[in-house]
Amino acid sequence: MIDHTHNPDALSWVASASEAGNEFPLQNLPFGVFARRGSGDAPRVGVAIGGLILDVAACADAGLITGAAQGPARACAGPSLNALMARGRADWTALRHAIFALLDADAPGADERQDRAAMFLVPCADADMFMPAAVGDYTDFYASVHHAANVGRMMRPDNPLLPNYKHVPIGYHGRASSLVVSGTPVRRPWGQTKPDGADSPLVGPSRRLDYELEVGVFIGPGNDLGSPVPIDAIDDHLFGLCLVNDWSARDMQAWEYQPLGPFLAKNFGTTVSPWVVTMDALEPFRVPPAARPEGDPAPLPYLTGGADRLRGAFDVSLDVFVRSARMREQGLPPHRLSASNLQDLYWTLGQMATHHASNGCNLRPGDLLASGTVSGPGKGARGCLLELTWRGAEPLTLPTGEERRFLEDGDEVALQGTCRRTGAATIGFGECRGIVLPARPSP
Amino acid sequence: MIDHTHNPDALSWVASASEAGNEFPLQNLPFGVFARRGSGDAPRVGVAIGGLILDVAACADAGLITGAAQGPARACAGPSLNALMARGRADWTALRHAIFALLDADAPGADERQDRAAMFLVPCADADMFMPAAVGDYTDFYASVHHAANVGRMMRPDNPLLPNYKHVPIGYHGRASSLVVSGTPVRRPWGQTKPDGADSPLVGPSRRLDYELEVGVFIGPGNDLGSPVPIDAIDDHLFGLCLVNDWSARDMQAWEYQPLGPFLAKNFGTTVSPWVVTMDALEPFRVPPAARPEGDPAPLPYLTGGADRLRGAFDVSLDVFVRSARMREQGLPPHRLSASNLQDLYWTLGQMATHHASNGCNLRPGDLLASGTVSGPGKGARGCLLELTWRGAEPLTLPTGEERRFLEDGDEVALQGTCRRTGAATIGFGECRGIVLPARPSP
Repeated sequence: MIDHTHNPDALSWVASASEAGNEFPLQNLPFGVFARRGSGDAPRVGVAIGGLILDVAACADAGLITGAAQGPARACAGPSLNALMARGRADWTALRHAIFALLDADAPGADERQDRAAMFLVPCADADMFMPAAVGDYTDFYASVHHAANVGRMMRPDNPLLPNYKHVPIGYHGRASSLVVSGTPVRRPWGQTKPDGADSPLVGPSRRLDYELEVGVFIGPGNDLGSPVPIDAIDDHLFGLCLVNDWSARDMQAWEYQPLGPFLAKNFGTTVSPWVVTMDALEPFRVPPAARPEGDPAPLPYLTGGADRLRGAFDVSLDVFVRSARMREQGLPPHRLSASNLQDLYWTLGQMATHHASNGCNLRPGDLLASGTVSGPGKGARGCLLELTWRGAEPLTLPTGEERRFLEDGDEVALQGTCRRTGAATIGFGECRGIVLPARPSP
Repeated sequence: MIDHTHNPDALSWVASASEAGNEFPLQNLPFGVFARRGSGDAPRVGVAIGGLILDVAACADAGLITGAAQGPARACAGPSLNALMARGRADWTALRHAIFALLDADAPGADERQDRAAMFLVPCADADMFMPAAVGDYTDFYASVHHAANVGRMMRPDNPLLPNYKHVPIGYHGRASSLVVSGTPVRRPWGQTKPDGADSPLVGPSRRLDYELEVGVFIGPGNDLGSPVPIDAIDDHLFGLCLVNDWSARDMQAWEYQPLGPFLAKNFGTTVSPWVVTMDALEPFRVPPAARPEGDPAPLPYLTGGADRLRGAFDVSLDVFVRSARMREQGLPPHRLSASNLQDLYWTLGQMATHHASNGCNLRPGDLLASGTVSGPGKGARGCLLELTWRGAEPLTLPTGEERRFLEDGDEVALQGTCRRTGAATIGFGECRGIVLPARPSP
């Protein structure tokens, strides 16, 4: 069945949605949580269309969203997407179709709808954005084999890719409290490190602050404790994707991570993009997952399914940009550090979610599962500075001539996600950025 | 200053509070969340006294708790302790004193107060208990050097205690969604394991299911992201302690844990005791932390403080009991597997919390930090079967003659915590138990 919300020729009566380079055309309709700046209004759920945000619940209250979409639209009155996420795929799709019809320039009665809906649109420029969901639990995976192999070569030269990697979608629990929305500055952490050759550890500001380019998936209805989700049903539990910057203090990480994994090296701040691109919007960009190299083991049966097995990856171009304080002073634009693609992961997001629940662990609406650093096979596709500068051994040069081994104070990191394919409208993820603040003067 | 709520001779007019072996005398007053069974009432905060539970908010509404204690008492109307935890130490102490006065048999007017308060008391036997707090983030530490050394010897014979152990209070993020209150059955998980000598991993029910005896601390007001808590101020952020059973699938753990730590081996269920014993109640049981062995490094300055440094440990006897299905059939009582003490940890709970926030990570009211398995130096003080049976090599024998390497279906594990010192009333933690259900027939 052809879904007309994917028709690349459809246009919205919101003119900015059709401008070149706009990430939020009619075919995208990502969800986020906003409040009109300075209004004192409580944050509520909106949908981005061009340069505007549609107040979804207000449209339902005004009778502009009706029928099967009315319930899910009213679930958008709250300060997070959790209530909508909990309702499930049929409701998500009904709401998408209703919002598409409301904003479609070519649907009958568009002029009248435009007149009535105009009062429920807020310019993005006048809105503050908030965390899209109240995240109960945040999990970070390690699904890029290129990233795992690179890091492994640095940390364990004798043993780069561990024996479990090609069987287990490796993941660990992250910190939910320190998830922050794009634009929130991130302070350089203090911590214990043990420099090479030192007899004992030191405490001080991290000297090896890094970003990690990741993609996150928000969980929908989820599962009860003790009840796994079969992989063929997992799509019903994935609401949509966002960009994630998993800021990492590499010097702290190297010293603390054995035997229980990363802890303070990661939990001082994790940046999340405010807009969640729904799986419905991503449907035209589904692709088979990256082929496993000849000789790699087949995934265990619980991680393979029927037709969905080959439809589980997404073609999302991912770029990282940095802009130093000096670059801003000189009026230079952000400098691209890498370009990779979500489809290069060794495990799909569906496999990660299935694995997570396979022991009966309960996933709840609004839980966030991140991919781990998305690196591709090439040098230019490495998704963090640890890999790009090979732990600082091969510094980068910025357009100002400044060198970078790791991040300096004042560096702003921005992630970008774009879906672009023949026969589909190009859609984007919006911004995921954060600037590095200097460490506190004392711990 | 002597705090009269620690007077060992004080008695409550609730007769059961003074019975031998009762864990909840007037000097304890632990907080929990309860509802009268079958009443349909929403859960709310109560305080245990003998065999009864006092409805704290109802007492405030009736004018039985007034003054400085009225605000914190009203914060007990909700379905979790979070609101009370957020208010801070002065409020906690005021409320403790008010409840003590209300229940004290010797205070003037006790008869009248007894008559008026009686309607706000519910027998424990008629109440359902719930998770005491909505836990935003759950962190598990690894603070017993005896446990770490034993596990290290098994998993890394060449490298038992890692170089960071005596410098860093090692911890990792656990799963908040699968925390369950005592009495909730725990289902044996399915998962990937790689038996010794096998070429590739298998999927099946865990064959090495274990418990871990732990103590948890609930966080009070907490800190803002980016603002560490100095160790001399950490006591203001610790609300109280509970018992925690960190159920663990050892075969899954051994296969998955490198390089990012335990994940599915731990997140299928973690049992928490319903009663939270406050730091105020534990004050008479403060002791200096275990002396570091000669030659061990001193903790780094951010982990040491002034006077509190030597007052940071607590003398809590910890016992583990198991009762198999056959033991229940034969009417045999639970069998004690081990006896250890919280004061034997290498790091205090205050050091763990301080370390957690030292990089700016924000702790929120209701967050739970667990100690990791509390093992002591002796063989009888090992806090999990992995250590007690040395990974199954030295099976235990139950009173029925049954052997145990790891837990079998139908085994019920119960943890017990008791504070007993000369000059203080003996107080206990109440129950922390769970029974093992068979694995699901298919994954």
